[in-house]
Amino acid sequence: MNLPERLVEGYRGFRHTRFRRERDHYARLAEAGQQPNTLMIACVDSRVAPEVVFDADPGEMLVVRNVANLVPPYQPDANYHGTSAAIEFAVRQLKVAHIIVCGHASCGGINAFRHNALNGVDAAHGDFVARWMDLIAPATKLALACDAVDPLHDQTAMELAAIRQSIQNLRTFPWLTAREKAGELALHGLWFDVADGSLRVLDEASGGFTRLDDAPLG
Amino acid sequence: MNLPERLVEGYRGFRHTRFRRERDHYARLAEAGQQPNTLMIACVDSRVAPEVVFDADPGEMLVVRNVANLVPPYQPDANYHGTSAAIEFAVRQLKVAHIIVCGHASCGGINAFRHNALNGVDAAHGDFVARWMDLIAPATKLALACDAVDPLHDQTAMELAAIRQSIQNLRTFPWLTAREKAGELALHGLWFDVADGSLRVLDEASGGFTRLDDAPLG
Amino acid sequence: MNLPERLVEGYRGFRHTRFRRERDHYARLAEAGQQPNTLMIACVDSRVAPEVVFDADPGEMLVVRNVANLVPPYQPDANYHGTSAAIEFAVRQLKVAHIIVCGHASCGGINAFRHNALNGVDAAHGDFVARWMDLIAPATKLALACDAVDPLHDQTAMELAAIRQSIQNLRTFPWLTAREKAGELALHGLWFDVADGSLRVLDEASGGFTRLDDAPLG
Amino acid sequence: MNLPERLVEGYRGFRHTRFRRERDHYARLAEAGQQPNTLMIACVDSRVAPEVVFDADPGEMLVVRNVANLVPPYQPDANYHGTSAAIEFAVRQLKVAHIIVCGHASCGGINAFRHNALNGVDAAHGDFVARWMDLIAPATKLALACDAVDPLHDQTAMELAAIRQSIQNLRTFPWLTAREKAGELALHGLWFDVADGSLRVLDEASGGFTRLDDAPLG
Repeated sequence: MNLPERLVEGYRGFRHTRFRRERDHYARLAEAGQQPNTLMIACVDSRVAPEVVFDADPGEMLVVRNVANLVPPYQPDANYHGTSAAIEFAVRQLKVAHIIVCGHASCGGINAFRHNALNGVDAAHGDFVARWMDLIAPATKLALACDAVDPLHDQTAMELAAIRQSIQNLRTFPWLTAREKAGELALHGLWFDVADGSLRVLDEASGGFTRLDDAPLG
Repeated sequence: MNLPERLVEGYRGFRHTRFRRERDHYARLAEAGQQPNTLMIACVDSRVAPEVVFDADPGEMLVVRNVANLVPPYQPDANYHGTSAAIEFAVRQLKVAHIIVCGHASCGGINAFRHNALNGVDAAHGDFVARWMDLIAPATKLALACDAVDPLHDQTAMELAAIRQSIQNLRTFPWLTAREKAGELALHGLWFDVADGSLRVLDEASGGFTRLDDAPLG
Repeated sequence: MNLPERLVEGYRGFRHTRFRRERDHYARLAEAGQQPNTLMIACVDSRVAPEVVFDADPGEMLVVRNVANLVPPYQPDANYHGTSAAIEFAVRQLKVAHIIVCGHASCGGINAFRHNALNGVDAAHGDFVARWMDLIAPATKLALACDAVDPLHDQTAMELAAIRQSIQNLRTFPWLTAREKAGELALHGLWFDVADGSLRVLDEASGGFTRLDDAPLG
Repeated sequence: MNLPERLVEGYRGFRHTRFRRERDHYARLAEAGQQPNTLMIACVDSRVAPEVVFDADPGEMLVVRNVANLVPPYQPDANYHGTSAAIEFAVRQLKVAHIIVCGHASCGGINAFRHNALNGVDAAHGDFVARWMDLIAPATKLALACDAVDPLHDQTAMELAAIRQSIQNLRTFPWLTAREKAGELALHGLWFDVADGSLRVLDEASGGFTRLDDAPLG
């Protein structure tokens, strides 16, 4: 099978519209290298493209994407840690000032975790997804403390709890916490609702998420 | 520190322009769930946003992003495998028809690997990046077979070799290869040049990359 | 000479990106006809595209563009009145609810008028531009009443005065004024500054223009 | 009535997305003035925004828009000639290299003309539209020579004929023809189909319009 014709035409469209318009900026970035200010940790979900949702410029955000926008705890060993490598690259080499964990509604990974937990399927199910999602097991309790409902029975509550959990895990990286304490790095949690385009922001003091104020759509 | 004001305004801009225009499409995707046709494996690099480069619609591509767009070999064990989980989700649950490994010029991860290899720094350097990039050690030989130059001394040659390596590793996933053999799944390699916006496509028969034909920019 | 290659590629880019994404909307508009809510009267200037500046959807604004966004006074006779025909089409047939006169900084037509007035060149100079711009001769006095400076010596003062003049002229169209009095139509004056992207809004009560409040750019 | 909230938010969206991204370009254009290469003569229709359809940059095209994208014949007299003033500005002052007359499907002005002609309504009907559209009366015969059908009974045939007519009228401007003969200016006719986004190009040798070749939409 050939490359999907749609993507070939999409690429040509990009090159002759946006790339053409911003080619000086791209050329400068190629020459000078990237200096993103933000690391965005987002989901692989096809409906939530961070550069689209935040209208980010090329060069503005380093973006790591995995199933359910998870951060594993700090565990430097002989295994391959893709997400942790991205965090190390962002914090120690690029010295980003912000890390944003951006979750979203209807997350397939969270849904799979809930389904498995409620049905007694263990993390050895399948090869990788169930084990990966097992990272949020501690969030079940975290969620209970913050939301009125049992998160296992509520998809949104579990999505929000997983964001809090990922931020907790970020703080297990010693060189990251050092920068946060020095006031050189801030951590943020966001949750995007695909259905209506609204965005909720984690208030770490209360543990709650509040909707970003915005004018109604016309 | 607050959420960067730039991203807040970028989000508001998105919501009142593109989201407003496509809100019916987003609402349908929220209701019906995603059915992406393609899994894109891309780099965390801030200059190469797949949805921008391919002008992808919401719902069109599942996108996993890690340092240097790598695919580890199939290794189902008790460890957390973020990239492999995304591949499993894409292939077994969403049944995508295409997997694209999309590399790019000036890749920081590839550069770090070359620097370490040429200077005798081993993979235990740092906590995660060097170990993660060690995944492409086999590509050093793979590159030599295909390109005229020693890839360790040539950034582009090593970037292209790493794409071939990732495609080789994809084929170690048994359920993925099964779908490929059944003609239900195709694998592709691409390389994007940030400086001039050109795109090269891997020809698996020859191992070479050829530039996608395109009209010159005005 | 052929069609400029840049525009051909720009069109192809549009068709494979934005048109593809909005094709259902375009198809509906083709089937149902247009029902724009707003008539925008704008300048031919290449730097001020109304659909870009207001991120307008297809179908949203009827747009007439002439040199310096002028409205001639109501004069139904045997001559061809292009702008008045557009106003008639908008008000009587499409029954728009808003008419916006949108001026801008560095207007070449206004500049030509000022140059001619200050240098004693009369409206018979050239074939059409000087005569056309003579439409704003009354605005010279209108401006004096509202702005501290002599508008002939100040480009911006004259641009703002010309917007007020055009709105005065709109009110010479009897069927337009009838709808305004009935509360079915509102008239607005805007001025766009190409240099910094700011937008000023006419306050008809005071005759002044005030900047639309907006967050600073990041 | 206030300014439509939708346009206010659309403007804010533009300013924080595209304007922010291109602000250096806008600032340069404000400083240096415009030097557009093309004059686009387009319709007021809300579904056919030239900068959108051709993805034009700020500064790239001077755009005059009137009902049905008409060009009156050269007639320098004491009356106000808005379209002719724009042509004079483009050709004599800005020295554009291309003039494009861009018509489109389902044109309301053309439809009104056909309706009036077929029903015996004369050009004195209404105040301005019927008189303005009377400009294309000669196109009725022009169309008969080129298209198989009676253009009065066929909307598309009449739209295409009106484009040819406008190009004929452009050639009545002596200083325009002088530049065309000197090879410094080219005239083009285009027709955009709102329903499917296709574009047809006038071949002046044959008088026919042929579809611009383009890949099918995905």
